[in-house]
Amino acid sequence: MSSYAHILPPSWKSQIGEWLAEDTPSFDYAGYVVGEVEREAFLLGKGKQSAVFAGSPFVDEIFKQLGCEVEWHITEGETFEPVKHIATVKGKARFLLLGERIALNLLARCSGIATRSKRIRDLATSYGFQGIIAGTRKTTPSFRLVEKYGMIVGGIDPHRHDLSGMIMLKDNHIWSRGSITEAINAARKVGGFSLLLDVEVGSLAEADEAIDAGADIVMLDNIEGNELVSVAKQLKEKWSGKRSFKLETSGNITESNLQERAINEIDILSTSFVHQSVPHIDFSLKLQKPKN
Amino acid sequence: MSSYAHILPPSWKSQIGEWLAEDTPSFDYAGYVVGEVEREAFLLGKGKQSAVFAGSPFVDEIFKQLGCEVEWHITEGETFEPVKHIATVKGKARFLLLGERIALNLLARCSGIATRSKRIRDLATSYGFQGIIAGTRKTTPSFRLVEKYGMIVGGIDPHRHDLSGMIMLKDNHIWSRGSITEAINAARKVGGFSLLLDVEVGSLAEADEAIDAGADIVMLDNIEGNELVSVAKQLKEKWSGKRSFKLETSGNITESNLQERAINEIDILSTSFVHQSVPHIDFSLKLQKPKN
Amino acid sequence: MSSYAHILPPSWKSQIGEWLAEDTPSFDYAGYVVGEVEREAFLLGKGKQSAVFAGSPFVDEIFKQLGCEVEWHITEGETFEPVKHIATVKGKARFLLLGERIALNLLARCSGIATRSKRIRDLATSYGFQGIIAGTRKTTPSFRLVEKYGMIVGGIDPHRHDLSGMIMLKDNHIWSRGSITEAINAARKVGGFSLLLDVEVGSLAEADEAIDAGADIVMLDNIEGNELVSVAKQLKEKWSGKRSFKLETSGNITESNLQERAINEIDILSTSFVHQSVPHIDFSLKLQKPKN
Amino acid sequence: MSSYAHILPPSWKSQIGEWLAEDTPSFDYAGYVVGEVEREAFLLGKGKQSAVFAGSPFVDEIFKQLGCEVEWHITEGETFEPVKHIATVKGKARFLLLGERIALNLLARCSGIATRSKRIRDLATSYGFQGIIAGTRKTTPSFRLVEKYGMIVGGIDPHRHDLSGMIMLKDNHIWSRGSITEAINAARKVGGFSLLLDVEVGSLAEADEAIDAGADIVMLDNIEGNELVSVAKQLKEKWSGKRSFKLETSGNITESNLQERAINEIDILSTSFVHQSVPHIDFSLKLQKPKN
Amino acid sequence: MSSYAHILPPSWKSQIGEWLAEDTPSFDYAGYVVGEVEREAFLLGKGKQSAVFAGSPFVDEIFKQLGCEVEWHITEGETFEPVKHIATVKGKARFLLLGERIALNLLARCSGIATRSKRIRDLATSYGFQGIIAGTRKTTPSFRLVEKYGMIVGGIDPHRHDLSGMIMLKDNHIWSRGSITEAINAARKVGGFSLLLDVEVGSLAEADEAIDAGADIVMLDNIEGNELVSVAKQLKEKWSGKRSFKLETSGNITESNLQERAINEIDILSTSFVHQSVPHIDFSLKLQKPKN
Amino acid sequence: MSSYAHILPPSWKSQIGEWLAEDTPSFDYAGYVVGEVEREAFLLGKGKQSAVFAGSPFVDEIFKQLGCEVEWHITEGETFEPVKHIATVKGKARFLLLGERIALNLLARCSGIATRSKRIRDLATSYGFQGIIAGTRKTTPSFRLVEKYGMIVGGIDPHRHDLSGMIMLKDNHIWSRGSITEAINAARKVGGFSLLLDVEVGSLAEADEAIDAGADIVMLDNIEGNELVSVAKQLKEKWSGKRSFKLETSGNITESNLQERAINEIDILSTSFVHQSVPHIDFSLKLQKPKN
Repeated sequence: MSSYAHILPPSWKSQIGEWLAEDTPSFDYAGYVVGEVEREAFLLGKGKQSAVFAGSPFVDEIFKQLGCEVEWHITEGETFEPVKHIATVKGKARFLLLGERIALNLLARCSGIATRSKRIRDLATSYGFQGIIAGTRKTTPSFRLVEKYGMIVGGIDPHRHDLSGMIMLKDNHIWSRGSITEAINAARKVGGFSLLLDVEVGSLAEADEAIDAGADIVMLDNIEGNELVSVAKQLKEKWSGKRSFKLETSGNITESNLQERAINEIDILSTSFVHQSVPHIDFSLKLQKPKN
Repeated sequence: MSSYAHILPPSWKSQIGEWLAEDTPSFDYAGYVVGEVEREAFLLGKGKQSAVFAGSPFVDEIFKQLGCEVEWHITEGETFEPVKHIATVKGKARFLLLGERIALNLLARCSGIATRSKRIRDLATSYGFQGIIAGTRKTTPSFRLVEKYGMIVGGIDPHRHDLSGMIMLKDNHIWSRGSITEAINAARKVGGFSLLLDVEVGSLAEADEAIDAGADIVMLDNIEGNELVSVAKQLKEKWSGKRSFKLETSGNITESNLQERAINEIDILSTSFVHQSVPHIDFSLKLQKPKN
Repeated sequence: MSSYAHILPPSWKSQIGEWLAEDTPSFDYAGYVVGEVEREAFLLGKGKQSAVFAGSPFVDEIFKQLGCEVEWHITEGETFEPVKHIATVKGKARFLLLGERIALNLLARCSGIATRSKRIRDLATSYGFQGIIAGTRKTTPSFRLVEKYGMIVGGIDPHRHDLSGMIMLKDNHIWSRGSITEAINAARKVGGFSLLLDVEVGSLAEADEAIDAGADIVMLDNIEGNELVSVAKQLKEKWSGKRSFKLETSGNITESNLQERAINEIDILSTSFVHQSVPHIDFSLKLQKPKN
Repeated sequence: MSSYAHILPPSWKSQIGEWLAEDTPSFDYAGYVVGEVEREAFLLGKGKQSAVFAGSPFVDEIFKQLGCEVEWHITEGETFEPVKHIATVKGKARFLLLGERIALNLLARCSGIATRSKRIRDLATSYGFQGIIAGTRKTTPSFRLVEKYGMIVGGIDPHRHDLSGMIMLKDNHIWSRGSITEAINAARKVGGFSLLLDVEVGSLAEADEAIDAGADIVMLDNIEGNELVSVAKQLKEKWSGKRSFKLETSGNITESNLQERAINEIDILSTSFVHQSVPHIDFSLKLQKPKN
Repeated sequence: MSSYAHILPPSWKSQIGEWLAEDTPSFDYAGYVVGEVEREAFLLGKGKQSAVFAGSPFVDEIFKQLGCEVEWHITEGETFEPVKHIATVKGKARFLLLGERIALNLLARCSGIATRSKRIRDLATSYGFQGIIAGTRKTTPSFRLVEKYGMIVGGIDPHRHDLSGMIMLKDNHIWSRGSITEAINAARKVGGFSLLLDVEVGSLAEADEAIDAGADIVMLDNIEGNELVSVAKQLKEKWSGKRSFKLETSGNITESNLQERAINEIDILSTSFVHQSVPHIDFSLKLQKPKN
Repeated sequence: MSSYAHILPPSWKSQIGEWLAEDTPSFDYAGYVVGEVEREAFLLGKGKQSAVFAGSPFVDEIFKQLGCEVEWHITEGETFEPVKHIATVKGKARFLLLGERIALNLLARCSGIATRSKRIRDLATSYGFQGIIAGTRKTTPSFRLVEKYGMIVGGIDPHRHDLSGMIMLKDNHIWSRGSITEAINAARKVGGFSLLLDVEVGSLAEADEAIDAGADIVMLDNIEGNELVSVAKQLKEKWSGKRSFKLETSGNITESNLQERAINEIDILSTSFVHQSVPHIDFSLKLQKPKN
């Protein structure tokens, strides 16, 4: 019933104008060479391995703003094997070419993140992990919406979108304010009831203080391995039925250490591994020669 | 005498406002927790290997717009070994934290590209390649300036910046127009003398036509290995003293095939390998606790 | 240690340019009449009753962008009795006058909301209400940040800032999706763990379903008076120690019915009464004639 | 033949993008819950008293930008009795909900101003006042166009729109310049013939000087009651056939003192009472459940 | 006491960012060549004839945004003989060069208009014309503020700035509405008292109707020479002491016919001759070589 | 097959919103007078001489954004004799009038430049000049795209568009850097292979150095008449078959000295004479009265 595209707000569409202006700041000389004859182009998914397709609503809008139409032969979030005929784009030759590079650049990154995200999510599930795997705010400046969207399509929790969302209190906030309790109280005073509080702690004692003071999520920093399991169990037992909270761990996740990091005593595993330095997926747009 | 920062135009600074707004669209709740007390923070270069540092003018401006000051302990383009104290940032606590993630996200990507760029450039030189290695337009939408800048710092030719720069005529332009010659004439009619013409060809005969018609650069598409060497030599000999042109090859470069692709019969080797899907460099910003 | 101003993001400052452009789209003819001689102006709080002062960081920035300086004689959030000398503004005559109307218009609204907010908060407290009183999204288009800020200064919880914050599922979402449970699952799928879910229900049974399905806040719609007390008590008892949730009531609050609406069985009372159709506070800016 | 909507310039439509972005800065999670199924919604005028409807062209454009269509069952400026079915909006479910709050917030304020404006205008007419009742520039920053529009729909003269319109010279301008005559000459020098000059004076002598120097409107400040009648009569008689000018009075108007303030010796009565701190009009948008 | 610069609003400064971006959309390669060494540059007024200098506040701001300082050796509106050392600009070499072309392009046009404006104003005065000479809205899109400013510096009345200023009713408005009287009534209904009404008429009878209906200015279209003198005299006599209005004539003014067109029976002579197709004034910026 | 309109990028269309806002910053009072009845208007080419028509894609877009349609009776670049019925515009009366002045202002300038450009190009050809005649960057701030477009339509080479295009090294760059060779090397280091280098020189020796160091174009500054011919010949001979370069001359071109300046030893003659201080072409838009 719903599509991932339905989480996109109306406002991001204005950014497409900036992407187009970045790629053609003054004249479109090559556009004069091809003119505005109607053409058809095939969008192809390439590369050497199967990939998760993500980014179609952005491509739709890029070509819509250029007066072209896109017909999709794949569903957002679907896994495809290369070479796959992803979509057919119809429009005036020079506008197909004006949208080409922007659309391909976007798909390469968005599908790359969705592909890595699904892979990690599936892997964790195969290890028996029932918790949440979430991304981070370590995104490309001005491109976060696309990157968080790619995570969602790939099955990864996008984590907080920005500093105006869930409030995270890290060591800087805590020692600046004097104590975990004081930092939480200050945050609640201005943030109100409608925002979750995620507090970073370095020990069992700090975790207790944070939970007691009303933290919704407790990020266990620099606690790993067996200690992490032990701390998590103690916290869950101690506060059972008294406080509602989630436990989060983060940092330095890779495919090779995922199995040991994804423990079910922890609710949330957050990592930039699913979206930063991710291999791009190769796409191309081929204009079709008219037959005659 | 000159610094890489000197190629940055005044206009990009307005984009920093967009980066800041993306990360804090409404309130800065955690900013209230730390307040505006003056603090000092250390920017650290981390990771496991040496890296090329790139991105300082952007970081300077991010913190300048937040009323903070940056003192650098490294030069743009310098190679550093982790952990390295890259810079010291001074300002009000909440503004240091507002700039933190944006600055780190930028440096991670910009230095990542510079590091890969330098590595590839050095490798090619070690193989005896005297030609140009250039990037592509396969950049992140709205982030191209930073990415092309990273290439330049890393020693890679940025190739044309956008569609309003050097005119490239590919197969679509040529068959749309009827012939290589007609496509070149059309491009020259509107582009004038001040733009180079780069024409993609698939054979020796097409290369001849392009050069005869005035192409400044000839991109030899789908011609590889010994054939590439042979075609290049024939073209250089035939047109010596009659026409001035450069030969370009492109596509599918990796570290493992660089040695065979970087042949001196070719003037320009263009590849997205230096800037797309590049590992990020890890940086962090640590606020310093006041001593007392 | 912290000031309310510390929750304001850097990005809103760019909106001041739009406010200034709205008030002087082309020439500033009267500015020519007074010129750019240095003057001092007194900002006065007027009206007939005591009021809560709110809006100083906006006024600071308005005059800063006009090259003027503001010295404050009152603290943000302080209650003052008219006529009160609020601040002294120094700068060039025409810039003082260019900022005058914008600053006064802003203060009139922002302090009006803070004044009403504090009055209602104090009144509810005097009735023994220990819960949260929160505002709504019924704000003036493009002026929400200022209005939500006024609520915070007045002691009112700002409630969610926008549709990208806490997810609220109302009857439209629920019947569109089929059931409360399905709507909650769909929201959680894309929103992830970092956003609260506030679900509107019309009966005890629906409330049970929402809580069971993971609602963080349950808004009891069209349940009032004794029934509200009874429903709230049953829910708190039934789910005690099993689920963590808050109960919210909303709508049609005025000073005259506040006592009966502010019951302690409910956690959150949300109302636009604190910020919509609120009486403005009267301020004026008086340029001081130079003495000689 | 003409509608009030015809005074709206094309440019304000771009502001709707800002309103939409303010309400959904990143993702539209609840939009995913309802999806893009076609729905019909009823816009209802509520509240407890009759009201003047104003704001339809803004609502038309909000929903047009969201791909929805509005069918109106009322005319702009018409008085309606609650509950009134104002309009039917058709479109995709999530876009109806994205426009809902913005449209309602706008109508609440615009119709509120039109309602108060018409009431005051009618009341003054019933007292026999034949002069002009005008608003002021005491509007909400960045929302002036909507508020002035509401005044016009309600039958109130919008007064000058901004500082680039009619030139007003107040005491600050006059003593800064040295005299009324000098201030008027300076203003005319740069403003030219196409702008009216409105000069604030505090006595009969000052009024004479202003009229003699070419003021088009004379604002009699701090002159009230019988003195105002007397001064106005003297000025009208003295300058009859020699100079053309209007007399204006302003400030502190309420419904209770309107009768004594609206005297026919005065041409213009300007007041923010018609548009500031005005009760909002209650509207709601109800999605219709599909029948089957 | 006042300077022409004092009529410039704060908002136009943001346009300078657009001018700079137009001239350097991506990299500033030549900026790297010269670097950021401190330099001094002389702004010289050239050409072959004396000229009126206009545009200094724009140049101030261009260089201010580039971190450079301007010291002026001439006053805005002053007439200079070439070659004149107009100003000294100090700043970093690459920023002097980034501002150079924009500043010169602006001065060339702004001073060109001021020079032509003063010439025509002086010529008309020498012919004994005591009326107003005004410009038009026939300006360069997005550059009107600069061009109207140039007229003001040159002594020409800028006429209405835009369609939101003085209301002009031309033949299209009149026949669309049915009659002059109806068109005037409709305009007054929405425009209110604070805007002048300028009505274009084609005969004495139409002029009478316009004046009777409340036109503030009557533009006599297609009435020239002796007929114009006769019609103007009749109107002035007939309505003396009854209505206050001004008479305007327009169109096809050149230096050669100015004497016959500038008749004192007419109050306003409006013409684009003072600002359209006006010869530019030649300026240059010379960087000074450091001595040693 | 191709039209000049095909070189216009998609991004410039957003500027039309700014043009419309400049002309109607708040209300469109006269729009209320005429309303939104459907009308037809004739766009007429006037003036006294034949002219080259240029600017239709801009006019198309202005009226498209206002919901009107344009039917053209002339081709872009065609020469017409006045009075010529250029186009028919259909749409709502007030939108025709809102677009009128902006469209006419644009056409007056764009066609003026095309007319002068074609005249100079034809004249040079008639003198036997086979080289390139090019414009300059001496354009109106924020209006360059339109002006360069007018040059192209008139047959003039637009020269480099901005500082991010072809790199020009003038005396300031050279002495700042130390030598021609060093300046060229620095420019190439950051600019890469894809940008041409145009170097200004003052003597034969300097020209030799520039060519040897890789200049693509050599601008011979302050070398005129016979000396220019002699220097050009020597350079062409000396470097024949060794280096590829073009020679450029510039400055102080008028119709009267064109014949002596347009010598075939030179490849490029660049001049602002074709686009600065150019007579505008007169156009008007006449609404057609409905017949009945």
